[in-house]
Amino acid sequence: MNRKDIQHITLKKNVKNNTKTFNHEGYIAGTAPYLRGPYSTMYLKKPWTIRQYAGFSTAEETNAFYKKNLTLGQKGLSVAFDLATHRGYDSDNEYIAADVGKAGVAIDSVEDMKILFKDIPLDKISVSMTINGAVLPILAFYIVAAEETGVSTKELSGTIQNDILKEFITRNTYIYPPSASIKITADIIKYTSKHLPKFNPVSISGYHMQEAGATTETELAYTLANGLEYVRAGINAGLHVDEFAPRLSFFWGIGMHHFKEIAKLRAARMLWSKIMLQFKPKNNKSLLLRTHCQTSGWSLTAQDPFNNIARTTIEAMSAVFGGTQSLHTNALDEAIALPTDFSSKIARDTQIYLQKETKITKTIDPWAGSFQLEQLTSDIANKAWKIIEEIERMGGMTKAIEKGIPKASIEKEATIKQAKIDTEKNIIIGLNKHKTREPEKELPLLEVDNNAVIKNQINRLHKLKSNRNNNDVKNALKQLQEAANTGNKNLLELSINAARHRATLGEISDALESVFTRHKAEEKPITGVYANEVKDYKLFDEAKALVQQFKKLKNSNPKIMICKLGQDGHDRGAKVIASAYSDLGFNVYMSALFLTPEQAVNQAIKNKVHILGISSLAGAHKELVNAIAYHLKKHKREDIKIVVGGIIPKKDYKILTKMGVVKIFKPGSNVVKTAIDILSILT
Amino acid sequence: MNRKDIQHITLKKNVKNNTKTFNHEGYIAGTAPYLRGPYSTMYLKKPWTIRQYAGFSTAEETNAFYKKNLTLGQKGLSVAFDLATHRGYDSDNEYIAADVGKAGVAIDSVEDMKILFKDIPLDKISVSMTINGAVLPILAFYIVAAEETGVSTKELSGTIQNDILKEFITRNTYIYPPSASIKITADIIKYTSKHLPKFNPVSISGYHMQEAGATTETELAYTLANGLEYVRAGINAGLHVDEFAPRLSFFWGIGMHHFKEIAKLRAARMLWSKIMLQFKPKNNKSLLLRTHCQTSGWSLTAQDPFNNIARTTIEAMSAVFGGTQSLHTNALDEAIALPTDFSSKIARDTQIYLQKETKITKTIDPWAGSFQLEQLTSDIANKAWKIIEEIERMGGMTKAIEKGIPKASIEKEATIKQAKIDTEKNIIIGLNKHKTREPEKELPLLEVDNNAVIKNQINRLHKLKSNRNNNDVKNALKQLQEAANTGNKNLLELSINAARHRATLGEISDALESVFTRHKAEEKPITGVYANEVKDYKLFDEAKALVQQFKKLKNSNPKIMICKLGQDGHDRGAKVIASAYSDLGFNVYMSALFLTPEQAVNQAIKNKVHILGISSLAGAHKELVNAIAYHLKKHKREDIKIVVGGIIPKKDYKILTKMGVVKIFKPGSNVVKTAIDILSILT
Repeated sequence: MNRKDIQHITLKKNVKNNTKTFNHEGYIAGTAPYLRGPYSTMYLKKPWTIRQYAGFSTAEETNAFYKKNLTLGQKGLSVAFDLATHRGYDSDNEYIAADVGKAGVAIDSVEDMKILFKDIPLDKISVSMTINGAVLPILAFYIVAAEETGVSTKELSGTIQNDILKEFITRNTYIYPPSASIKITADIIKYTSKHLPKFNPVSISGYHMQEAGATTETELAYTLANGLEYVRAGINAGLHVDEFAPRLSFFWGIGMHHFKEIAKLRAARMLWSKIMLQFKPKNNKSLLLRTHCQTSGWSLTAQDPFNNIARTTIEAMSAVFGGTQSLHTNALDEAIALPTDFSSKIARDTQIYLQKETKITKTIDPWAGSFQLEQLTSDIANKAWKIIEEIERMGGMTKAIEKGIPKASIEKEATIKQAKIDTEKNIIIGLNKHKTREPEKELPLLEVDNNAVIKNQINRLHKLKSNRNNNDVKNALKQLQEAANTGNKNLLELSINAARHRATLGEISDALESVFTRHKAEEKPITGVYANEVKDYKLFDEAKALVQQFKKLKNSNPKIMICKLGQDGHDRGAKVIASAYSDLGFNVYMSALFLTPEQAVNQAIKNKVHILGISSLAGAHKELVNAIAYHLKKHKREDIKIVVGGIIPKKDYKILTKMGVVKIFKPGSNVVKTAIDILSILT
Repeated sequence: MNRKDIQHITLKKNVKNNTKTFNHEGYIAGTAPYLRGPYSTMYLKKPWTIRQYAGFSTAEETNAFYKKNLTLGQKGLSVAFDLATHRGYDSDNEYIAADVGKAGVAIDSVEDMKILFKDIPLDKISVSMTINGAVLPILAFYIVAAEETGVSTKELSGTIQNDILKEFITRNTYIYPPSASIKITADIIKYTSKHLPKFNPVSISGYHMQEAGATTETELAYTLANGLEYVRAGINAGLHVDEFAPRLSFFWGIGMHHFKEIAKLRAARMLWSKIMLQFKPKNNKSLLLRTHCQTSGWSLTAQDPFNNIARTTIEAMSAVFGGTQSLHTNALDEAIALPTDFSSKIARDTQIYLQKETKITKTIDPWAGSFQLEQLTSDIANKAWKIIEEIERMGGMTKAIEKGIPKASIEKEATIKQAKIDTEKNIIIGLNKHKTREPEKELPLLEVDNNAVIKNQINRLHKLKSNRNNNDVKNALKQLQEAANTGNKNLLELSINAARHRATLGEISDALESVFTRHKAEEKPITGVYANEVKDYKLFDEAKALVQQFKKLKNSNPKIMICKLGQDGHDRGAKVIASAYSDLGFNVYMSALFLTPEQAVNQAIKNKVHILGISSLAGAHKELVNAIAYHLKKHKREDIKIVVGGIIPKKDYKILTKMGVVKIFKPGSNVVKTAIDILSILT
């Protein structure tokens, strides 16, 4: 297909009608617009990379886990960092103690990074790192760790997520405000294009949007629009498009709509080619979208966890039929806790079957030609293109984010989706249909004792600080600060320098924060959307009546404060609850993200709430709820009822109840029913 | 498509080339030759029927299980009978005691059948019954049970397997010789075409051929050729093709080759239309192939059982993409034992996800148009057609079976397949690649105490016999015998009469056996096939060297007798072992099927074997091995080593070892390694 044709591809449908002529000329794998696959041989020569995302508390444990997986058929690594690391805090910072080592590995310095990759040949194994806020120190540590073990940066292959725009849209693990963050992205693109030619400096992620409730078309459109913004940042930083665009990579979530997900991946490649044409690349690789995929967490249920294996298998097949370059398959217990060795192995093996037992790798783009799938690919591409054009009319994604538009759209879509699940228009087996009546099987779950982790990290930080030249560190951090101020030097280069002198993650982040400041987002529930979607839902009317009853009884609307504690920024659940409760007639106070328990209790008392609702998804619930109970008691306000929702293992229910929690809700609970439960406790 | 075109469809390829024109005119779902699906709306109006095959020891337990499943989303029932019932024995027959209630439910009379379906509305729930040998008494019991609970036979919907030809090819649960068996089939077709118009009188099964090791093309061809034979039997019995052909149904196995299995189902419909044209049906439904499918047991591993969920999901998707009318998904523990409530639920839920969470039911024949899949459909159809033509040249399937040709072909394919797995040309994860090194998780397995079952059945038989009019029974059985002799009356009609008078399953079978005799097949391993497939396989040469070493030491080839005990006719494993061991230089004695332990020991002693190898797949291993050990001891021949292979739960290993078993092999064990293990024990 010639480039002129690519510019017009979304304007015509691929399939003229379902039974007659089919036009697919020019769609060949390995040739722009790459609809049928980025490479001409696809999985025939080499299947996709099995890349399981994992991190376990300490660098030592995680290293052992990686090495074992590499012997069991895994081909690439993918690092999950704990939330303290994500947000730029060292493990000795008391403010974030509850999150250290909980949802991933704690990395404070180059020394931790060297332990993380001990005996793993970084010139041979590609490494993916999910980090966005604290991307500078982490990438710096990785580069220095490689250098100090004799691996040239030229040999480093892998990906750093470094997709800060989507953090402002959905995931909230940012540190600095948008403009400063984009400056960091540009510096990383610039530095890696020169020194890490095999490394992907940005992984533009739709995955988190899907998890936050976005529709397929929105996930596709916003992600490509974010990508376009990074390309502009690179070009504004003085690079030619071909210097970095071939190393941009993407990351999609894959849910249960089998056909739509396949079509999305095919449409994404086609649209990216179309978008990139405007920069007039000489290298066709600048038109090419390569991607990682992860199966959906949203689709998993805490009920009947073994059934999640089937769901993940269906999703993995979509990713593979869509032509992904690498894949993470979720473990069966991820709706309950972090995966264990047992569940991780099953998840990884699912991919090995697809590669070795099914023969599906023997066909390039096996769905090519299918009447319905070609039509769907075209439909999704056209819908996404309209959304991209809207974003462009607003002046691009950074502008749109500043206006709060993408965030609000996705929250609206999430609220609609939840309302559809609650009213059984969307069906999730075990959750809103065919519920198990038998007691749940207890799975052996992963439990993290983070006191030991913190002690270990503090010891190592202490040793590091007593062995380094503190003057050198001070100097390096000062240079970094100056560059943040003036913008005349590359921030990654200076972060590497600081890392070499053993500056810690917290120190590097603080130096930058002192100039850039720390971003604070306003959390505000949308209203009216849930109510509009659940018309004629009897239970909703019942709940509303209970609210009125409460009002008569107590002369006040029921008041709830919904908060996220610690460094956990996954706020989809909290937002949806807030929206639905508002529509039911609650007075809802939505706290800012990243509160300490003490701050949360103070705000709850100030707002005179009846209920304090805590949403927890990152495994720190015991520590955080304990602190909440302590502060409520201190203020003699045990009359404020604590309810908790999120990923809570069954065996912790008793412990939380003992602390004073009156109700615990699993992921996927019917929102209206939770309100009724709470109201029945209050009255 | 007009009928003239259908006659020529396999002669042209559907896809002219991979990138240009695609010719699919006339292929429309609901229109002959039905390639794109038997019905014009397919799953849009009603998804496939979830029909899980199950039977638990007693009619009471099985009835409770069915009723629970019906509330949990299952739509049809599928009865698994125990092997004693299959082979026409009442539960009080000592000869088959070890098999009573083991691999399914024991049914001795109408009374058992009435308990089996208690409180299940037989006019609303369709029932599938897997029975072939003892098809007359079982179908008679079902009809009488319905009548006596007020359901007219006109309302009965469901399927009886009644596919006796494939029993002679692979599964061996026949009773009478082929010609007598075909006479029974014809009588059933004739009777049901008049009295049970909504009931499928034959389910022509490829499933067991796939499980026995047949390739896709062989499974397809032999099954259609069997179907053709039944159609001829119906016509020879005086029926018009349209009086019964619309009620014939099919049954396919679905393995891990995702694309091939989809293509097989599409090709099957096309070829069946082509075959049926010769009978000049007026009703287009006589050209239409409807089918049930079951995921593959062969593809499951006893290692890492939870991984089997992923395999079954992939296979279920193939069946659905292929357009099946009903589906059984295997439970994760079926390579270890019979499924439990826990594992059955997961298996069933997999289908519910596909129906409710994936949206794949929203497209008719979603793969239609796919370049590769249309090509594959055409390729498989052409290959299968060649095999069908060969069978026709032999004079049809009954003739081919009498010559032993289909049996030998499948055994050869099974031996080649096993050799490919042993030499890792075919990969099965956990089995010959990526083996787990950790100790296996112990699953809660189903254990059947059949002493209680036998006692219960004997009591009920006793009660039945003391309450009935024995003269009436005698009379009814005599009439049946006479009709078997003269062929002038319908055997099903007379079986119904006998059933009404409370004749038992054993009595009805005996009456027929006294005329027809009981069929005895010769079991003979093929030679040279395994050796030919494993050229350059080092381990094979090592094993051969060990055989030579044994020969020098003992002045004799190692001698093994391989036997199946009890009523378990699944002899694929036994045959493959026998073939491979022969090729290694063992003297192999293959016992006849259905030996008692005493007979087996006598033969072993007579043949002067060093090893007695027992293959067990039906859960009766403890009882049967215990008896073997007893008889060896009685003859003071404990020097003959007992080895056991098959489906043996880990927890029974100790028990068998205590009985004197020197080695136990799981399904999927490397055959050469088993030989080496045995030789190392002998020397």
